[in-house]
Amino acid sequence: METRIEHDTMGEIEVPANVYWGAQTQRSLQNFKIGQERMPRPMIKAMGTVKKAAAMVNAELGQISKEISQLIVPAAEQVIAGKWDEQFPLVVWQTGSGTQSNMNCNEVIANIANLSVGQALGAQYPVHPNDHVNRAQSTNDSFPTAIHVAAAVEINELLIPAVKQLRDTLEQKSRDFESIVKIGRTHLQDATPLTLGQEFSGYVCQLDHGLKRLNQALQGLYELPLGGTAVGTGLNAHPDYAAKSADKIAELTGLPFVTAPNKFEALAARDAAVFASGALKTLAVSLNKIANDIRWLSSGPRCGIGEIRIPENEPGSSIMPGKVNPTQSEAMTMVVAQVLGNDTTINVAGASGNFELNVFMPVIAFNLLQSIRLLGDVCNSFNDNCAYGIEPNLEKIEHYLHNSLMLVTALNPVIGYENAAKVAKTAYKEGKTLKQVAVDLGLVTAEQFDQVVRPEHMVAPKA
Amino acid sequence: METRIEHDTMGEIEVPANVYWGAQTQRSLQNFKIGQERMPRPMIKAMGTVKKAAAMVNAELGQISKEISQLIVPAAEQVIAGKWDEQFPLVVWQTGSGTQSNMNCNEVIANIANLSVGQALGAQYPVHPNDHVNRAQSTNDSFPTAIHVAAAVEINELLIPAVKQLRDTLEQKSRDFESIVKIGRTHLQDATPLTLGQEFSGYVCQLDHGLKRLNQALQGLYELPLGGTAVGTGLNAHPDYAAKSADKIAELTGLPFVTAPNKFEALAARDAAVFASGALKTLAVSLNKIANDIRWLSSGPRCGIGEIRIPENEPGSSIMPGKVNPTQSEAMTMVVAQVLGNDTTINVAGASGNFELNVFMPVIAFNLLQSIRLLGDVCNSFNDNCAYGIEPNLEKIEHYLHNSLMLVTALNPVIGYENAAKVAKTAYKEGKTLKQVAVDLGLVTAEQFDQVVRPEHMVAPKA
Amino acid sequence: METRIEHDTMGEIEVPANVYWGAQTQRSLQNFKIGQERMPRPMIKAMGTVKKAAAMVNAELGQISKEISQLIVPAAEQVIAGKWDEQFPLVVWQTGSGTQSNMNCNEVIANIANLSVGQALGAQYPVHPNDHVNRAQSTNDSFPTAIHVAAAVEINELLIPAVKQLRDTLEQKSRDFESIVKIGRTHLQDATPLTLGQEFSGYVCQLDHGLKRLNQALQGLYELPLGGTAVGTGLNAHPDYAAKSADKIAELTGLPFVTAPNKFEALAARDAAVFASGALKTLAVSLNKIANDIRWLSSGPRCGIGEIRIPENEPGSSIMPGKVNPTQSEAMTMVVAQVLGNDTTINVAGASGNFELNVFMPVIAFNLLQSIRLLGDVCNSFNDNCAYGIEPNLEKIEHYLHNSLMLVTALNPVIGYENAAKVAKTAYKEGKTLKQVAVDLGLVTAEQFDQVVRPEHMVAPKA
Amino acid sequence: METRIEHDTMGEIEVPANVYWGAQTQRSLQNFKIGQERMPRPMIKAMGTVKKAAAMVNAELGQISKEISQLIVPAAEQVIAGKWDEQFPLVVWQTGSGTQSNMNCNEVIANIANLSVGQALGAQYPVHPNDHVNRAQSTNDSFPTAIHVAAAVEINELLIPAVKQLRDTLEQKSRDFESIVKIGRTHLQDATPLTLGQEFSGYVCQLDHGLKRLNQALQGLYELPLGGTAVGTGLNAHPDYAAKSADKIAELTGLPFVTAPNKFEALAARDAAVFASGALKTLAVSLNKIANDIRWLSSGPRCGIGEIRIPENEPGSSIMPGKVNPTQSEAMTMVVAQVLGNDTTINVAGASGNFELNVFMPVIAFNLLQSIRLLGDVCNSFNDNCAYGIEPNLEKIEHYLHNSLMLVTALNPVIGYENAAKVAKTAYKEGKTLKQVAVDLGLVTAEQFDQVVRPEHMVAPKA
Repeated sequence: METRIEHDTMGEIEVPANVYWGAQTQRSLQNFKIGQERMPRPMIKAMGTVKKAAAMVNAELGQISKEISQLIVPAAEQVIAGKWDEQFPLVVWQTGSGTQSNMNCNEVIANIANLSVGQALGAQYPVHPNDHVNRAQSTNDSFPTAIHVAAAVEINELLIPAVKQLRDTLEQKSRDFESIVKIGRTHLQDATPLTLGQEFSGYVCQLDHGLKRLNQALQGLYELPLGGTAVGTGLNAHPDYAAKSADKIAELTGLPFVTAPNKFEALAARDAAVFASGALKTLAVSLNKIANDIRWLSSGPRCGIGEIRIPENEPGSSIMPGKVNPTQSEAMTMVVAQVLGNDTTINVAGASGNFELNVFMPVIAFNLLQSIRLLGDVCNSFNDNCAYGIEPNLEKIEHYLHNSLMLVTALNPVIGYENAAKVAKTAYKEGKTLKQVAVDLGLVTAEQFDQVVRPEHMVAPKA
Repeated sequence: METRIEHDTMGEIEVPANVYWGAQTQRSLQNFKIGQERMPRPMIKAMGTVKKAAAMVNAELGQISKEISQLIVPAAEQVIAGKWDEQFPLVVWQTGSGTQSNMNCNEVIANIANLSVGQALGAQYPVHPNDHVNRAQSTNDSFPTAIHVAAAVEINELLIPAVKQLRDTLEQKSRDFESIVKIGRTHLQDATPLTLGQEFSGYVCQLDHGLKRLNQALQGLYELPLGGTAVGTGLNAHPDYAAKSADKIAELTGLPFVTAPNKFEALAARDAAVFASGALKTLAVSLNKIANDIRWLSSGPRCGIGEIRIPENEPGSSIMPGKVNPTQSEAMTMVVAQVLGNDTTINVAGASGNFELNVFMPVIAFNLLQSIRLLGDVCNSFNDNCAYGIEPNLEKIEHYLHNSLMLVTALNPVIGYENAAKVAKTAYKEGKTLKQVAVDLGLVTAEQFDQVVRPEHMVAPKA
Repeated sequence: METRIEHDTMGEIEVPANVYWGAQTQRSLQNFKIGQERMPRPMIKAMGTVKKAAAMVNAELGQISKEISQLIVPAAEQVIAGKWDEQFPLVVWQTGSGTQSNMNCNEVIANIANLSVGQALGAQYPVHPNDHVNRAQSTNDSFPTAIHVAAAVEINELLIPAVKQLRDTLEQKSRDFESIVKIGRTHLQDATPLTLGQEFSGYVCQLDHGLKRLNQALQGLYELPLGGTAVGTGLNAHPDYAAKSADKIAELTGLPFVTAPNKFEALAARDAAVFASGALKTLAVSLNKIANDIRWLSSGPRCGIGEIRIPENEPGSSIMPGKVNPTQSEAMTMVVAQVLGNDTTINVAGASGNFELNVFMPVIAFNLLQSIRLLGDVCNSFNDNCAYGIEPNLEKIEHYLHNSLMLVTALNPVIGYENAAKVAKTAYKEGKTLKQVAVDLGLVTAEQFDQVVRPEHMVAPKA
Repeated sequence: METRIEHDTMGEIEVPANVYWGAQTQRSLQNFKIGQERMPRPMIKAMGTVKKAAAMVNAELGQISKEISQLIVPAAEQVIAGKWDEQFPLVVWQTGSGTQSNMNCNEVIANIANLSVGQALGAQYPVHPNDHVNRAQSTNDSFPTAIHVAAAVEINELLIPAVKQLRDTLEQKSRDFESIVKIGRTHLQDATPLTLGQEFSGYVCQLDHGLKRLNQALQGLYELPLGGTAVGTGLNAHPDYAAKSADKIAELTGLPFVTAPNKFEALAARDAAVFASGALKTLAVSLNKIANDIRWLSSGPRCGIGEIRIPENEPGSSIMPGKVNPTQSEAMTMVVAQVLGNDTTINVAGASGNFELNVFMPVIAFNLLQSIRLLGDVCNSFNDNCAYGIEPNLEKIEHYLHNSLMLVTALNPVIGYENAAKVAKTAYKEGKTLKQVAVDLGLVTAEQFDQVVRPEHMVAPKA
């Protein structure tokens, strides 16, 4: 492999001749051969956004020249757009501050910029990765800023729309199913009836609350550490830099970012990420309930509950028709398990800061963004490939409803509690329907039974 | 042991003659000999509150007589006040709906009420545990209502005041220490300076955010399932009962409870508890950072960091003065570990509902309330026995600050980067101070050094 | 309250006149008003065992007099027997080394001993809590020794017998059910048949493996830190003390305890407890599968799977017969959720040691012992109140089996794959049985069908 | 994109013309657009191994022809060797049984085999993906077999050697440092001395135990589900197939695999993976202690503990020499956080099986293998880039040791406890050394002091 020589404060190091990264990235590659989990794309995009905003504000405040800024900005835009992702080879398991990924970004942007004015890779001129691209920043404030930006953008652009779409589909189902009365189940045991629409309305409400919780969690993510520099004091940054750079990032992303009110907290704690993960795990818990209900309700085709039908997307069995494995539910519940584990990881990482810096930032970024991505994607997949096509199995629903012993309660006012209990007990023992028994015992006529035992009257409170 | 005979739908059962509980409680005692963790006091209080509110609203709506209501209310008030806690012997590990604890409460209140009008224990007259005390309720809505009430009350009355007090103490310290300049530390390594007050201000900000998050989490807990009855439809409840009973509970507790907008979600999911645990674990994570910083900063007395002194509350060593073990930090970090585990438990339990009911309610109640209680208590204990008495060790702080090599950056503008680096390297290699070396090398005079190297000028951004 | 004055190195302190604890316990009571979770009984018993063993070995090695030893031993035996539990008032949330509980034990034993020779409470003569009861010990080695002893004893005496009993019951069921052929289910969807006995044999195998894992985990718990004293060096202990005290504890408990091969690990890490929790959580995961299967298999009575019947232990519904809530499964799965959370707590606590000592010991002890206790109790409860009484619902099992479309595969050799698939598809579409359709289509006679489609031939491999 | 048409039981589907996968893989790609986490390489390798072994045993047992077997085997070997990884495009978030990845493997192997005899992609002839490559298998037994094989191979080939190497390095350090006496620290507070070698010996012991635990966990992974086919009965497999295929896999891998004693457990539970994760998390907890100790011991250079020096691998600060950020410790503790979270995920997934199958297999495989890989890699990285180069900072160690007040205990026998305490208190208050004070107070001469106060005599028990 052809190489070129790069320098940093530790001396010379060979890097592949044609790469856009420099010495510090290369050292990291050599010192951290751990796993294959690269810094996720939304982080690269967010780092690009931070660099772009910083360059614009630094120029505005006279900290770098307009010319330098005008070289950095388009280079950062290319990074944001994803044109240089392969130039970000570093894994998550590096220095806990993310310094090496921050330097990777500085190096790549400087090289793009310098090449654009005819310089060679590694020239560090006219744009210097540290003095210009990283100007008025420390990894300690810019990397956590990128985490907040990446997570807030992903939640807004990927996750919330996906949850909303699934919610809307389920709401439509809830309306479609509003007059389908079915047996209720508590403790997995037959209970009083409700409508299938009511059952689905519970899922809609879970997701509505989930959206509210995501918005609550976003409040903390909107606070940006940028301007705290190395330890939170803002040393080497212009006094206006923190507020202006947050404004700029808000402008670039269209999201209401503000400068964090206290930069010491903003560097030393990643509590906003921990709380955001708390909202994500709550959403996961909601989705688990929904996915489980749907796979149980569609279980069968003959030996399960089978009250609904879900789309058949792939062969369930090569010979047995009707074996529709609830694979979307399975993907969703696996994502839930992952998100609950990621939450544990984020808790441990978030709890482990010391003094002026939390140095578990890459692992927090990785897990938080994975949770957001997986939840968003699985909501979309579940929506398109499952929820959208759910249909009631009216025959099964009817069958259960009318076989259920729970409806006996409706007979109380007519034949008295004692007789009603007798009907139920006899029906249970002899494997008959309530109607059969009630009529056989001469307590009501078939017509009376049908008039009185009306499950559709049992699905709402009554005065 | 003397016993009396009680009845339920399964038949007769002996209960100790003098207890206020009845058949269903007794069966639970016999069938669930599991552990020793009883239903916590705040749940008993909250169940009492629910029963009181229900009785009042039921009377108002003509569902029970005024007379019966007036017997139930004072009995419930005694339960609320804690007079009958020993009559609630059931453990957490029972039916997953909490039915047996709900029946325990019904039985005890009925007996208190009936005894107050001269009836015997077990009379079930004039007040019947099911027909009157449990009127218009199912365990399925009243038990989760009690969870929400218990958690919201404990967060408001115990936890928030405790966090606020600790926050205020730390803010006072932050002000007291605002001009004490000290070395910063990132990656556990010496970094640029900040003030001790700034360091503490980060803790204050963490707790301020924690309080905000608790308030966000309370929103969901304020939604009450009551009125959903068995499966969320409100069967057997008056149409006005749900809203009125929530209003009544709001009135009784002084907290803004409302009826849950969707009772199917309110019974089948415990998502609000899961999210509340997410706020609690985030607070725990914040407290872990604070407790750890404080024990490291006070480590020593001779061979640690020792920048602060914490109160000596108990003998650390029988012969060695100055060995002040950071026992309050230890208690706090142990509580944090517990809260993180409780969060996992609540996640698993919250994710495991099926159809119309989540049947992991007692374990959710137990863990949620334990987390609230422990966090509240440990904040109070840490405040009174540690934070309140924190004092700076000025000598140590000064020593580190002036020994640090990090201050060399201040010399850059005067002697240039190259010379500054040379000074630092020499000082490091020869174990000397920067001042010594800078003067020895003839780069500055001692006076110049003192004029230029002013850490107190490095703790804020500068234009 | 009457008090007496006690002394320690911090000076005087009032303690209630009649308690057996002394100054250090009293200070802890005042400084750690946190929660209500007391040091669990098995820890008190284990601390008593450690003190008894130490006294015997110290006398043997000439470190204390025979007379003193003979006063300590019976006092320790009373503590072991549980006679003085109320004299151990301290909570878990104290110093992280457990020093205050260790001192509590020293103080109580000294007072019992001294009273036995006519001295007053607090006399510290002839038996001194530190010089004699705590002789050759530090909390740092004796407290973790007590954790290992307590956990190993509880696993051996409570948990393993409980798991074995449940395993034996399930094995008996497996044998009882060995010829009951039933439909299999994968993905919750109908699959090829197996016997109910085979299904239960899987549970037996899970528990057999669980027992093996517990025994693997015990190996680490059998290594005792005692003899490491303050930092692992054994300073102030006789060179033979470590090995002899471990032998003595082995003798007293009947368990194969040995002295830990490396005392630095033994004090600084609680890895054996972390791994033991790993075995406990695996057992919990197994029990979750079993409890869930059983509640789903017994779901109904009319609108669920209902292939088995479980005992009815308490009223499920006042009017509906057959509604048997699977409350033992619910208790068990709630315990599982708790154990998974406790595991997280133990992981966090175990990971947080520094230098020569892990100071998360009380919280580790508390969670480890709670997990053991709950798992043991719930196995017993589930065995006695559920597993023991499980009966097959043969009618339901038959019904599903013969309705299932999965049996069609047996027709392949006779009518060919194409025709078999046609039979299944038609049956599914028209809601008929395979037999009906196969006969209707003229592919086989009813007799042929019955001869060929023999689910009992599908439950084993065939040559 | 050019495509070809493939068929499965659902009908036709277009796949890219040149890919080796077929219809079922393609459907999965389209139905599960979730995240980017592909089935990990060790799983592909293990699936190849399973297919190879199955083909050989099926030929031996006359289930497929020798010719077909001889086509499958070399194709499987290429998959094992990693030549076709890009033909395995499926993500983890698919059907919970892993069916689609199993089919992916069948399709790729069939195509490789068929192309080798001049057939076209998609020919399914002479080797058929289902009838031949998947012969006598169901995903339900072959996929979990692949999980066990993959995990066992990775533990043996990657993780155990990595842990051993780190253990050996630390043992060498322990020996190198065996006579360096240093201050001990408990509760982060100065304690009695030990040698640096003793401190490191604790780490070695932790890893020795970790290796033992990995071997205990391997026992369960060595039990293979293969031969259980769809529900554990072994339907469609030859009676000798299970045992023979396990033997074959043992032969191919050199690891002691056996056929699982109970196939119902082997399909329905993933308990062995849960327990293996328990061993991994315990190892993680051990590594956390080690990594934390090392970064704290190397903290500084001026304002921390600084008793050891670690290698400088990358620039810590551009101007400040000696700022060596403990980046390897940071990477390691981030991996620990990940492994603890993965353990939670595996617990949740492992607890969620129903009836005859656990359908959380891909997420279990993904997390288990990630934990193994990350732990192995980080042990290697930490060993090479940190542990190997650890050096004592003798000056610092000496300084602390001789400044410590803890040594005063050595004076007890000479000047009495009272005087010793006085010396310590005075030294603490006046900021002097023990020696200064003891001599000043006229209690000993300087020579006497040096003779008596010998920390090196305090690092072992004494008769």
